[in-house]
Amino acid sequence: MSSIDAATGRSPEPGDGVIRAVEALRRLLGPRLSTTMAERTQHSRGEGLPDVGMPDAIARPQTTDEVAAILRLCHEHRVPVVAFGAGTSLEGQVAAIRGGISVDLTGLDRVIDISADAMDCRVEAGVTRKRLNEELRHLGLFFPVDPGADATIGGMAGTRASGTNAVRYGTMRESVLGLTVVTPDGTIVRTGTRARKSAAGLDLTALYVGSEGTLGIVTEIQLRLQPIPEAILAAVCSFRDLTGAVSTAVAALQSGLRMARIELLDEVQMDACIAYSKLDYPRGPALFLEFHGSKTGVREDAETFGVLAADYGGGTLIRATETESRNRLWKARHDAYHAVMALAPGKANMGTDACVPISALVDCLLETKADVEASGLVAPIVGHVGDGNFHLGILFDPNDDQERLTADALARRVGLRAIAFGGTCSGEHGIGIHKLDQMETQHGPALDLMRRIKVALDPEGIMNPGKLIPDA
Amino acid sequence: MSSIDAATGRSPEPGDGVIRAVEALRRLLGPRLSTTMAERTQHSRGEGLPDVGMPDAIARPQTTDEVAAILRLCHEHRVPVVAFGAGTSLEGQVAAIRGGISVDLTGLDRVIDISADAMDCRVEAGVTRKRLNEELRHLGLFFPVDPGADATIGGMAGTRASGTNAVRYGTMRESVLGLTVVTPDGTIVRTGTRARKSAAGLDLTALYVGSEGTLGIVTEIQLRLQPIPEAILAAVCSFRDLTGAVSTAVAALQSGLRMARIELLDEVQMDACIAYSKLDYPRGPALFLEFHGSKTGVREDAETFGVLAADYGGGTLIRATETESRNRLWKARHDAYHAVMALAPGKANMGTDACVPISALVDCLLETKADVEASGLVAPIVGHVGDGNFHLGILFDPNDDQERLTADALARRVGLRAIAFGGTCSGEHGIGIHKLDQMETQHGPALDLMRRIKVALDPEGIMNPGKLIPDA
Repeated sequence: MSSIDAATGRSPEPGDGVIRAVEALRRLLGPRLSTTMAERTQHSRGEGLPDVGMPDAIARPQTTDEVAAILRLCHEHRVPVVAFGAGTSLEGQVAAIRGGISVDLTGLDRVIDISADAMDCRVEAGVTRKRLNEELRHLGLFFPVDPGADATIGGMAGTRASGTNAVRYGTMRESVLGLTVVTPDGTIVRTGTRARKSAAGLDLTALYVGSEGTLGIVTEIQLRLQPIPEAILAAVCSFRDLTGAVSTAVAALQSGLRMARIELLDEVQMDACIAYSKLDYPRGPALFLEFHGSKTGVREDAETFGVLAADYGGGTLIRATETESRNRLWKARHDAYHAVMALAPGKANMGTDACVPISALVDCLLETKADVEASGLVAPIVGHVGDGNFHLGILFDPNDDQERLTADALARRVGLRAIAFGGTCSGEHGIGIHKLDQMETQHGPALDLMRRIKVALDPEGIMNPGKLIPDA
Repeated sequence: MSSIDAATGRSPEPGDGVIRAVEALRRLLGPRLSTTMAERTQHSRGEGLPDVGMPDAIARPQTTDEVAAILRLCHEHRVPVVAFGAGTSLEGQVAAIRGGISVDLTGLDRVIDISADAMDCRVEAGVTRKRLNEELRHLGLFFPVDPGADATIGGMAGTRASGTNAVRYGTMRESVLGLTVVTPDGTIVRTGTRARKSAAGLDLTALYVGSEGTLGIVTEIQLRLQPIPEAILAAVCSFRDLTGAVSTAVAALQSGLRMARIELLDEVQMDACIAYSKLDYPRGPALFLEFHGSKTGVREDAETFGVLAADYGGGTLIRATETESRNRLWKARHDAYHAVMALAPGKANMGTDACVPISALVDCLLETKADVEASGLVAPIVGHVGDGNFHLGILFDPNDDQERLTADALARRVGLRAIAFGGTCSGEHGIGIHKLDQMETQHGPALDLMRRIKVALDPEGIMNPGKLIPDA
């Protein structure tokens, strides 16, 4: 097995095993096995920080059986395997840091089955969530997990993705009913069922969801779908201060108010969005909201929310019910990343992913903001506050080593602080390589159980090595 | 390790390992280690079929540290360990079929912490759900998972319990945020966090939930709680036929209507309930419903439901909003088991637990009813139809071997039929010993992964041996 060169981020010359595996894969896949520098470079990284790990070759299977054949060959030759989808992961999950084969699953792009009656579907791993939702719309159904990027469903399962709708509809953990997985030795297994619940044995589905390709390759996903609500009401509510905004969110959750989305933008982020998207919203921190239900239900929900917000210094709700006006409102939220980048051209953006119990959210955010201020860096905050999850976008000069170190240290403190508050260093982006150093603090002795499961299910250690679970 | 005697259901004379373990445990626990026949008999079985497995001794720890010490000793002496809570499991999970130590966790009965702000709590495994809800009420919170029996939270986590509220609030899978687990070698680990979601590593929490004590002993559980809704409206709706009732339930789910409970009673079960609880409800299959929300919201939901039901031959909704009238309505549902037993005094009741995609529910139920009729047995049906889960109560004469065989065969076909419809042989009761023979059909090659995980986490095979995962 080759290993990464820390100086260049490139794997060294391929060993005999890789050479033999590539030859065998070429016989299997013909032109769908590529070793061009362009393809290797494209598959060397995801989004987020530019951490590169060059695969030795890219395999482009079109069926589960081909994935199984690829894994059998890689297993035989002890060659690392990295699953690759849309390349939108943020924590270095797809970088081939120990070389080997990047298995590009975008050729597995069939929507296998949609059942409007069961409100579920089965898709291949390379289907993206936006395409799935296009195919669902005419049936009155949608797939609610929305991480922002147009990720593949396989990638979303691999990282246990969530996003803006999770406060109401759950994350991939709650949305995946079952999987087809190819194990490292090329065995094809199916986990889960199409029933909405099951108490029949160990929950292998939950084990593979969020395993970041370290236990096998997911090739098919059975998903729960949701009915498109009769009415959708979006709204923005501005606050005098962050405490008021977050306290309102917590109070709304405690009151049982059903929100489909409740997103926090701090005053730095709102300033950036107002400038970038030319909004006429008030300055200051804000909550972006969405209510799903009947026409009278969403109106009642918005009114209830408005009364609550007023108690915490919230302004009048700016509402949007028509599709176009709702889209305009949410576009400002979705453009938050670009708005931040426009603040400081040439800077890079280091994302964090803390998630804490909602009771700790105000304190954790205030401590974090003080920490940002002390660091001298600019780092706007957006948060899926209904889940207690928030992201800093730490701006730093990628050519300034000292600033990168300062940003790294700040990001690390954000994760450790979340753990100290009873939460997690990653709410939805996963671990990859960037948060490996927090896993011991996060899990303690439980980390040893993860290692034992890894060895049991991937005894040769070929599946996405160096990710998710730090070496003992 | 001793094994069960098929003829007597009793384990043979204890081996040297058991004798030495019991001596060591007596030194550790004093009078909280018992070998009396009364205690052993009481811990030899749960509810459901009278399958007995006598433990050699009962250990009554009071802390997680004591559980760890017990497991270290049992591990050292290679003695089977069975966790025991309220003894309400239905599939033989607590029977000590290979002898060994029954670890009675009812002494771990502290509610460790309740956070009204975070809407979560941490409890020891021996706390029962009713006691927890008593402690929560004054905070305006409740723990929604309601399997009927007053099970311990530890037992409910172990079997991945659900029940009547799961259609809205999820099962134990969705309610458990984290665990304290003692591994077979006596290591204490914590899984999960208090955040509502996490993407930090393998989902050990989900792996232990539903593992039926085969991987370790759960001693503490972190639970998500729910706000008590402002208004609750319960209702009963009778139908001309089963198809109409089930179709209404499916249509309601597809319309996005939020029901907190939607329970089916077939005409045999309704007849029994009407007779037993002296109800003036119409004869024929019925749906028992509950809506949670605002006062106007639940009224609107009930009206929407009524309109839907009328399309499928449903009668007028009989409503109940006050606590007392709601309790009266639900008492009839909760007394369903007793009502069935009153049909045929002296008979035993064999429960089944099929769960299928909701699109398959009508067909699966009609096939099942035809199968019951052909069997010549009486078997009323109740179902958590919002989840696609239904239970037969197959009445049989426990002293008539032929009738027992007929009942066994019927129950087995119900599980296999659910699997054939894309569902599961167990929606919520678990596998224990009764459904072991369906695991191969249920999981195929995935069963081997469960075996590998079992070996990785319980290499000596001392944790509840003979349950959940059939021997290879």
